[in-house]
Amino acid sequence: MKPDLAKLSPTELRHVIRQGDYTGPTSGLCPGYTQANLVILPRDLAYDFLLFTQRNPRPCPVLEVSDIGSRQLNDFAQDVDLANDFPKYRIYRQGSLTSEVTSVADIWQEDFVSFLIGCSFSFEAELIAAGIEVRNITEHVNVPMFNTNIPLKSAGNFNGTMVVSMRPIPEAQVPVVVQVTGAMPKVHGAPIQIGDPQAIGIKDLTKPDYGDPVTINQGETPVFWPCGVTPQNVIMQTKPPLVITHAPGHMLVTDVVNATLKY
Amino acid sequence: MKPDLAKLSPTELRHVIRQGDYTGPTSGLCPGYTQANLVILPRDLAYDFLLFTQRNPRPCPVLEVSDIGSRQLNDFAQDVDLANDFPKYRIYRQGSLTSEVTSVADIWQEDFVSFLIGCSFSFEAELIAAGIEVRNITEHVNVPMFNTNIPLKSAGNFNGTMVVSMRPIPEAQVPVVVQVTGAMPKVHGAPIQIGDPQAIGIKDLTKPDYGDPVTINQGETPVFWPCGVTPQNVIMQTKPPLVITHAPGHMLVTDVVNATLKY
Repeated sequence: MKPDLAKLSPTELRHVIRQGDYTGPTSGLCPGYTQANLVILPRDLAYDFLLFTQRNPRPCPVLEVSDIGSRQLNDFAQDVDLANDFPKYRIYRQGSLTSEVTSVADIWQEDFVSFLIGCSFSFEAELIAAGIEVRNITEHVNVPMFNTNIPLKSAGNFNGTMVVSMRPIPEAQVPVVVQVTGAMPKVHGAPIQIGDPQAIGIKDLTKPDYGDPVTINQGETPVFWPCGVTPQNVIMQTKPPLVITHAPGHMLVTDVVNATLKY
Repeated sequence: MKPDLAKLSPTELRHVIRQGDYTGPTSGLCPGYTQANLVILPRDLAYDFLLFTQRNPRPCPVLEVSDIGSRQLNDFAQDVDLANDFPKYRIYRQGSLTSEVTSVADIWQEDFVSFLIGCSFSFEAELIAAGIEVRNITEHVNVPMFNTNIPLKSAGNFNGTMVVSMRPIPEAQVPVVVQVTGAMPKVHGAPIQIGDPQAIGIKDLTKPDYGDPVTINQGETPVFWPCGVTPQNVIMQTKPPLVITHAPGHMLVTDVVNATLKY
């Protein structure tokens, strides 16, 4: 990362990324501003997917949906180009990853609908502000994520089970953690399970299905939140002809501050 | 109202209504259970309307969307028939009310999508539980509702301005009222304006655009909430070929208790 990136405003950072001058992860950039996951689908799948997110808001909190074909937003960012302002994109055809690119302008279609989905970066920032250690940040790794047996509500061809993220929390801090994250339903909200991984079908906390394992100290409770990997997983299982997502960790930095996601 | 209606469970009440044995308003029935507004649209308008509700969740809090063509629900009620379980329906063609009926089974279409939308009955019950007088209930009239200049976010052909409901609240109780209703975003959430009707384009509180005027006593502040009449208004302005709604005050009584709408 160039040292001066840390000082950029969201608009300035998006300009740098749009020019192709930064293609790395966005973690830690523009602290305090909401970062967003991306799913781009053609219009003929957009109704079922929007309905899927309406029925499963905990793992699929939609921040904004673009107009059909538009590369702009109305709410979460001005001066934005959805085809260029994520540092890295993944292109999936028939459910298989076919390429990772820094722009999707050349394959943009008039029937594309872009879904911006809330990300746990936002609630992690609030947890830290409340004096809670977030272990994956302390250990500089990706948060551990697990497949579960928690069923999702289906919509059209979209269905499956929930993916969760896990953060170990000192027992005495669990109530505060529930309150802080519960106040942010647009970024997954309160935990979905506290302290009993087996109850949701997780066998081994040291072997996450995605991300990295983190240390769990004595006296700490594993706390599980609905995870934004869920919608991507569900979409891939339907093997649509074409889907575009952000590359993991390479998010859109928006103009909205995390604190406003509470209201 | 038959005297024994008050003792029925939601399922029992829906059976009575389904048989055509009760066609009156649902206010006060099955206290504590969530009641829902209805909008039925054909599939080709459903995406734009669902997107409209996603962009305007305050006036358009969607509780559940049916599968295409289905008269059942998955979440808010078991043993339900959406074509018969509202005591009264309104049928609009090209934006004009053409009839009011007690069943829409005979005109049901395979492409119908039913939207259940949250209703302020739920938060009024919570306000009363918190010791707040709800004037329209005390005075046995419909809540006063007003057109405003608050712009909505458009989606497809759906756009317009917000309709609000007004309840006068003693000044000292306003903070409690904000907290109680703010905790229920699925039924309109916190007020949108407190104390200044002219700021949102309302000229005369004694002349509501819908519903009835209520007494405002000295020391009381008019408090305004986003209102579920908004989506119906917006739909009618687009003059779609066919829309079905519930008749005002004639709601679906669901199996869900109001308190769970907080989470």
